[in-house]
This record gives sequence, C-alpha cells and structure tokens, in this order.
Amino acid sequence: MLNSVEEKILDTIDNVKDLFSGAHNVRSNGKAISRSISKNIDIINKEDKPGINVVIKPNTIGESVHVPVILSDENFKDLVYNTFDVGEGSDVVVVAGCGIHNCGTKTTQHDGIHDFIVRKGAHLKYVEKHYAGGDGEAQKIFNTKTILEVEEDGVLEMELIQIKGVTSTKKDTEIRLHKNAHLIITERIFTELDQEAQSHINIELVGEDSTAQVISRSVSKDNSKQLFYFNMKGENKCRGHIECDSIIMGNAQVTSVPSLSAYNEDAELIHEAAIGKIASDQLMKLMSLGLTEKEAEETILKGFLK
Amino acid sequence: MLNSVEEKILDTIDNVKDLFSGAHNVRSNGKAISRSISKNIDIINKEDKPGINVVIKPNTIGESVHVPVILSDENFKDLVYNTFDVGEGSDVVVVAGCGIHNCGTKTTQHDGIHDFIVRKGAHLKYVEKHYAGGDGEAQKIFNTKTILEVEEDGVLEMELIQIKGVTSTKKDTEIRLHKNAHLIITERIFTELDQEAQSHINIELVGEDSTAQVISRSVSKDNSKQLFYFNMKGENKCRGHIECDSIIMGNAQVTSVPSLSAYNEDAELIHEAAIGKIASDQLMKLMSLGLTEKEAEETILKGFLK
Repeated sequence: MLNSVEEKILDTIDNVKDLFSGAHNVRSNGKAISRSISKNIDIINKEDKPGINVVIKPNTIGESVHVPVILSDENFKDLVYNTFDVGEGSDVVVVAGCGIHNCGTKTTQHDGIHDFIVRKGAHLKYVEKHYAGGDGEAQKIFNTKTILEVEEDGVLEMELIQIKGVTSTKKDTEIRLHKNAHLIITERIFTELDQEAQSHINIELVGEDSTAQVISRSVSKDNSKQLFYFNMKGENKCRGHIECDSIIMGNAQVTSVPSLSAYNEDAELIHEAAIGKIASDQLMKLMSLGLTEKEAEETILKGFLK
Repeated sequence: MLNSVEEKILDTIDNVKDLFSGAHNVRSNGKAISRSISKNIDIINKEDKPGINVVIKPNTIGESVHVPVILSDENFKDLVYNTFDVGEGSDVVVVAGCGIHNCGTKTTQHDGIHDFIVRKGAHLKYVEKHYAGGDGEAQKIFNTKTILEVEEDGVLEMELIQIKGVTSTKKDTEIRLHKNAHLIITERIFTELDQEAQSHINIELVGEDSTAQVISRSVSKDNSKQLFYFNMKGENKCRGHIECDSIIMGNAQVTSVPSLSAYNEDAELIHEAAIGKIASDQLMKLMSLGLTEKEAEETILKGFLK
C-alpha cells in the first residue's frame, strides 16, 4: 500500500504502531489509502468538499485518531477540510502528521483546514507534526488553518511541531475558550536555508476562569525567516501566559509580535519573549567535554527544541 | 506674565525654579512669553513654521533647557515643531512639559513634533510631562511625534509621563541608535473616565553594541482605553529589553503589542509584559494597617507609577 519512501515519512510524522492499532485515516497524494474506525470513533467523508468528519462519542476514554497526510507527487496541491467533534467527557488524542517527499523541481503543497469542537468536560490532545524531505529544488509548502472551540470545563493540549525541510509554512490557529476551559500550546519550529515560517495564534479567553498557556520555541538558521504573531484577548476573569524563545543563527531573521488585550479587570495576561543566539558558555562547556563546535551546537539546539 | 492658573499648570509639568534659572522658552496659547538663552545654549525661532531650534554647543555640561507649553484658551489648536541639536560630548537635560487648562466645552489640542540629534558621545536626558486640568466637558488632547537620532557613544534617557486629565493622546516615538549608543526609556501613563491613550515606540538598534531598555508602566481605570505598540529591531550586535506592566481597573481596556525583530545573529532582544489588577494581598496588607480600600488602592497605584 505504502511504498518505502512513504513509510519512512509516516514514521517521521507519526507513530506507525499506534496509528494502525486505532481509528485512522491515511491520506496519500489526495486519496484515503487506509481507514479504520472504532466503536466510539467514526470517520465519514465530507460530501461537499475533500476531507472527513471525525465524530468521537461522549465519554470515549483513552482512544486516539490518526489522520496523517503524505505527499510524494511533485507539482501537486492538496487541499483538505477536516472536522473533529470531540464528545462530552471524552479524553482522546488526535495526531495529524503531514509529510512531503519531493526530489523534483516542482512545488508540492498541502493546505489543511481543520475545525474542532471540544465539548463540555472533554480533554483533547492534538499533535501536529510537519516534515518535508527530498533533495530537489522544489518548494515544499504547508499551510494550515485550525479553528478550535473549547466548551465549558474542556481541556485542549496542542503540540505544533515543524521538524524540518519545509520551504514555506503559514499556520493560522484560532481558539476560543469558554467557562473554566484550559489550553496549553507547545510550539516548536525549525527553519534553515531560505525557508520561511509564519505562525499566527489567536486566543480568546471568553469564559470565566478560562486559562491559556503558550510555550513557543524556535530555531532559525542560515537565511531563514520566522514570523510569530500571538494574540491573546481576556474578555472575562481569566489567566493567560505566552512565552516565546527563539535562537537565531547566521543571517536568519526572527520577528515576534505578541499582543495582549485585557477587556476585564480580572483578566491577568503575561507575555515573555526572547530572541538571541546560543549561549557561548553552554557551547564552551560541551566543547570542553570533547565535542566539536558543530556537535555542541546541535546538542544544544536539540535540547532547546525537545 | 503668567496668570495664577498658568502658574499652577507650570508647577505641575516642570520645576519652576530650575526653569527660570537656565535656558528656556515658555510657550503659552501659541506664543513665546518668556525666553532665555545661555552662553552654550541658543534658541532661535524657525522661519518656515511655528517652533524653535535649540542648539547646544559641544561639551556643554550640566545645563538644562526647559520648553514648556501651556494652553488655557478653549477651542484652540496649537501645533509646534521643535528641533534640538545636542552637541558632541555634552551632558544636558531637556524638559518639555505640556499642560492644558480648560473649563469650557470646546476642545484644546496641542500637537508637538520634535526632532533630536544627540551627537557623538553626548548624553541627553529628555523629560516629557503631560497634564490637563479644568472641570469642563472639553476634550484636552495631546499628540506628539518625536524623532531621535543617537550618534556613536551617545546616551539618551527619556522620561515620558502622562500625569492625568488628558482626554486623548497619541504619542509616536522613533529612535535610531548608532554604534555603542544607549537608550533608557521610562514611560508612565495614567488614564481614567473615558480617556484614551496610545503610545507607539519604534527603536532601531542600527549600530554595533547599541543597547535599549524600555520600562513602561500604566494604570487604566474606569472606561479608559490604552494601546501600546513597541517595536524593537536589532540590525547589528546589540541588546534590547522591553518591560511593560499595566494595572487595569473597572471597565478599562489595555492592549499591549510589542514586536521584536532580530536581523543579526548577535542581536539579543527580550520582552516582558503583564496586564492585571492590583494584587489583593497588597490591598489587604494596607487595609489591615488602617487604610480604607480607596486609600490603599491609591497608595499602591502611586507606588506603581512612581
């Protein structure tokens, strides 16, 4: 079903064992090539546009859904709309890995538009991993638009990870948190060469006692460019915290623009950002233990993006 | 020369003793009403537009220039262009206080456009205090555009203070720092009622080893609105640090948007922001010492904006 290149990509963007043991939908070059559902998790094709509806029954505990996308055709643009309905009181994991392999010269692009509703008291862990490989000159592009609504007492954990190889990416994430809903976002982005990455995260703390925490870390090497926009609005008694750290190397450029807006006297919003290079004392220490400068650098970056 | 109301305003926005003992230009309702120069500091009227050129000779040490603006006429709009040339190796203080008194119903507005050049090795302390009084319903508006160029080894200390009473303000500050130039900005803004305040600060760290530090604190009460935009660009080996804290009360709204951009791998940029209400434990402590809640609140706000 999958050729060896596709298998390798899948292994990078997802855990293959977990994937095939539960509900999943594997999309390769625009077509579903493997699908499995469970008693509690249904996957249905959309009728009006490409994509699927994933419906998770209330009180589904400990299950996962994997919806990886693989693209190995060059000169191909994939566009998909996925909708996830996470039922009341569930506790589930959704893994959306996206991998491109392109050794040619013509662009491969994946645009994913995702809608989530995390219903009352549900807990969703959402993992998104982006990776591209191939020696060619071709552009490997990922764009995502992700809209998430977290109902009362819901919890959303997001991991947004760009591993490497992506020529250009634009991620747009919008989250609304209702009463006592909680959000934790972990973002990791690595760019090198002439790559460009943009991440916009909009968080609306709508409900009383909602909380949000964003921890974003990135490494920008060579001539690559990164742009971060974080927008957090406190519209009720709430707490929000954004922390973003970037390591910059070579001729790279990083811009970080967080925006905090408080519309309620009981909104507590905090932001911290830092852009800088690798600490030289850390480099020295590892080099004194026998590592070359390059090895020391790689060790530090790995630890930073962990 | 000054009536009693004007004297009172002057006393709020400047130190009258210091003012009249050195170089100064007092502008009242659009006209210069008192001027004094010194051996080292010249003040010349602009020929093409309203305003003055202040020329400070090289190596002028320990002197000050006061250029207060007082407006007591209602339905009056004052526009002034001032240019300051701070000579090489000087160490001087410039105080630009602006005060409006309006008991009527029609708007009084002051727009000040300031240009500074801080020449090689000079040290400038620039103090800007805004205040408005009067019981009327009239709008009391201040807008400023301040452009500052700090040459090699120059030091610029800025104090931007909005005391109270200003219906609407928009401050736009642009600073370019050259080799080994240093900047420290202290900003304090207080708004209440339906007042609105906007502050845009753009800092370009152009030169090697330039540094910038911004400490902004604000209090927003009642229905007032505050908007802060901080934009710091590191274009060379440099260090920059922005810290902004806001206390929000009642139905006030505060938006804080810092933007860090690093265009050099030796640029180190840091930002911290927090929006929240007065810490309740601080209130409790002061109230347990016998203060009413209102007194305790005022004491804390005073300390915060000090």
